Amino acid sequence: MSDFTLDKVARNISEWLRGEGPMHEIVISSRIRLARNVAGRRFLSRADADEREHIAEVAATAVRKAPRLSGYMQIDVAALDELHRRLLVERRLISRQHAEASGARRVAFAVDETSAVMINEEDHLRIQVIRSGFRLDEAWDEINRIDDELEDQLEFAFHPQYGYLTACPTNVGTGLRVSVMLHLPALRLTSELDKVVEAAKELRLAIRGLYGEGSDATGDFFQISNQITLGRSESEIIDDFRDQVIPRIVDFERAARQALIDRRAIALDDKIFRAIGALKTARLMSSNEALQCLSHVRMGLHTGRLQSIDLTTLNELLLHTQPAHLQVLSEGRSLNGQERSELRAAMIRRRLGVSEN
Amino acid sequence: MSDFTLDKVARNISEWLRGEGPMHEIVISSRIRLARNVAGRRFLSRADADEREHIAEVAATAVRKAPRLSGYMQIDVAALDELHRRLLVERRLISRQHAEASGARRVAFAVDETSAVMINEEDHLRIQVIRSGFRLDEAWDEINRIDDELEDQLEFAFHPQYGYLTACPTNVGTGLRVSVMLHLPALRLTSELDKVVEAAKELRLAIRGLYGEGSDATGDFFQISNQITLGRSESEIIDDFRDQVIPRIVDFERAARQALIDRRAIALDDKIFRAIGALKTARLMSSNEALQCLSHVRMGLHTGRLQSIDLTTLNELLLHTQPAHLQVLSEGRSLNGQERSELRAAMIRRRLGVSEN
Repeated sequence: MSDFTLDKVARNISEWLRGEGPMHEIVISSRIRLARNVAGRRFLSRADADEREHIAEVAATAVRKAPRLSGYMQIDVAALDELHRRLLVERRLISRQHAEASGARRVAFAVDETSAVMINEEDHLRIQVIRSGFRLDEAWDEINRIDDELEDQLEFAFHPQYGYLTACPTNVGTGLRVSVMLHLPALRLTSELDKVVEAAKELRLAIRGLYGEGSDATGDFFQISNQITLGRSESEIIDDFRDQVIPRIVDFERAARQALIDRRAIALDDKIFRAIGALKTARLMSSNEALQCLSHVRMGLHTGRLQSIDLTTLNELLLHTQPAHLQVLSEGRSLNGQERSELRAAMIRRRLGVSEN
Repeated sequence: MSDFTLDKVARNISEWLRGEGPMHEIVISSRIRLARNVAGRRFLSRADADEREHIAEVAATAVRKAPRLSGYMQIDVAALDELHRRLLVERRLISRQHAEASGARRVAFAVDETSAVMINEEDHLRIQVIRSGFRLDEAWDEINRIDDELEDQLEFAFHPQYGYLTACPTNVGTGLRVSVMLHLPALRLTSELDKVVEAAKELRLAIRGLYGEGSDATGDFFQISNQITLGRSESEIIDDFRDQVIPRIVDFERAARQALIDRRAIALDDKIFRAIGALKTARLMSSNEALQCLSHVRMGLHTGRLQSIDLTTLNELLLHTQPAHLQVLSEGRSLNGQERSELRAAMIRRRLGVSEN
């Protein structure tokens, strides 16, 4: 697949940013991934270049043969330039680690981006299914089917006592990670986020920013994931997220939003309207500032304080103002920070229908 | 005079903020003041309450009898509440020290606020004449006439060798202080302001903020004054300001503005349009932020980058968003910080013609 095709992909909105599904005013997306390794092959940390290449071929062939996956786009990540690798990270089709690694590695994904298989990330295969809104069951059903079809093509490393074997011990067992992306602007504004973080720690959950490990929680977007898979069944983990963890945080954020409306409406509106003001007037804007402003505008839309922007435009901007998307969509090449800030601000004003001066 | 009359005064724009006169795009106002003391009376630092009261009466009578000053409003500063004393400070009709002092003290000022006489500030009389723009000669001519007329009514403390005697030695001689208020946003943005401050120090000039001693240079407004009067004639001091000091700084600011336009137009526009964006959208705004935003908008107007606001509205907002003006003009009473921020933001949006969401 050529970069040109990827450039077309960049224009679409990612599944995870559609802003649909249950509780979508707070739950951005529900993601499940499975870690799998081909039986009889070394883990990648111990594989040489040839074996790595061979595993990539074997896995890619399995993806092509699996009926549900046969229409997937397959991309040779190792052959992409840095800009397009980062583009895939921003779309959450590959991890940052996968983008920055070296050696044979690929990604295959459904055209609608609801599912993807990373080949030769930490494990031989990392299967993910993502849905906008709070739809873990749907994601779970789909990933099970994909897993079954791939298992028809490949024998996975499995131990009768421990379960699926993975490169990192934390994934051994089910190889399952459940990640729910939440938008928690009110909890941040009311300084109650620490309570969520504390509670998550006690439940042995990980809280990360928009782009996984090592990324900040910019713009009030938080990814909550399970950390341990060993000794718990898939359904225990998912039930826990669906019935306990996420509904509690969602209720907490809802209460915080209501408290802001009831008791600090002016301060709330100040954040929301300043954000739209900055987006409409800035001539230079960093991606972090854009994300923060768009976060406040999103809160404005979902609390009914703001009507002057539609959700689709907002979601598009959340993605298209990210550095790689911005560069691919504007000039199609790498730009320096100043150029990016200028083009980002211009793109935002254009999309918001601002007539210049 | 009642507070009600002062409340009407508050609605007008001060002379110094008219935005007229030579070099008004950079020189906000030209001010000259003379320090005078009644001969045969103690300086105020040594006067008891009775003598202080007596001096106030004598000076007030002289003001009433002087033909040019006979129509002045006379206000008993000691009888004013704090809010209205601060109102006079914001209009630069009295000093902060005069507002915060205790004991008998007054102010008399022309209805158009181009001249004022503080009675019992540091000296028995402090005469000031102020003009918008760069008009030192005009101010000097007028203050000379006022000084002469007052001297017809009062004998001033004068020493044949030292000149006019004043409470503080730095004013002995001419008792003259020349203060020019400058708007230097480009020098601040280009970080060249330090050079101006250094040069001013070498020339033994004082640089202060908008409201004199102890105030910050908020919103890029700077007051430049002579520090020493002894040993120099009035005309030497004024010639120096008119022909050397101020034209040089004005040229420096002009060059900085042109450099921004030529080489950093986007960054310049970013400041200007973000400022107008914040003014139009904020729901809470401190006086410092308002001043900073209005400063950038003023630069936008005078560099031709922005046309969507008129200078009169801008100048009114510069004054009316100050804390005392805001409180007098909105509720007519003291408000807490949160209330002020809210009313200030609402006033600004209203004056800028923003239709509420």
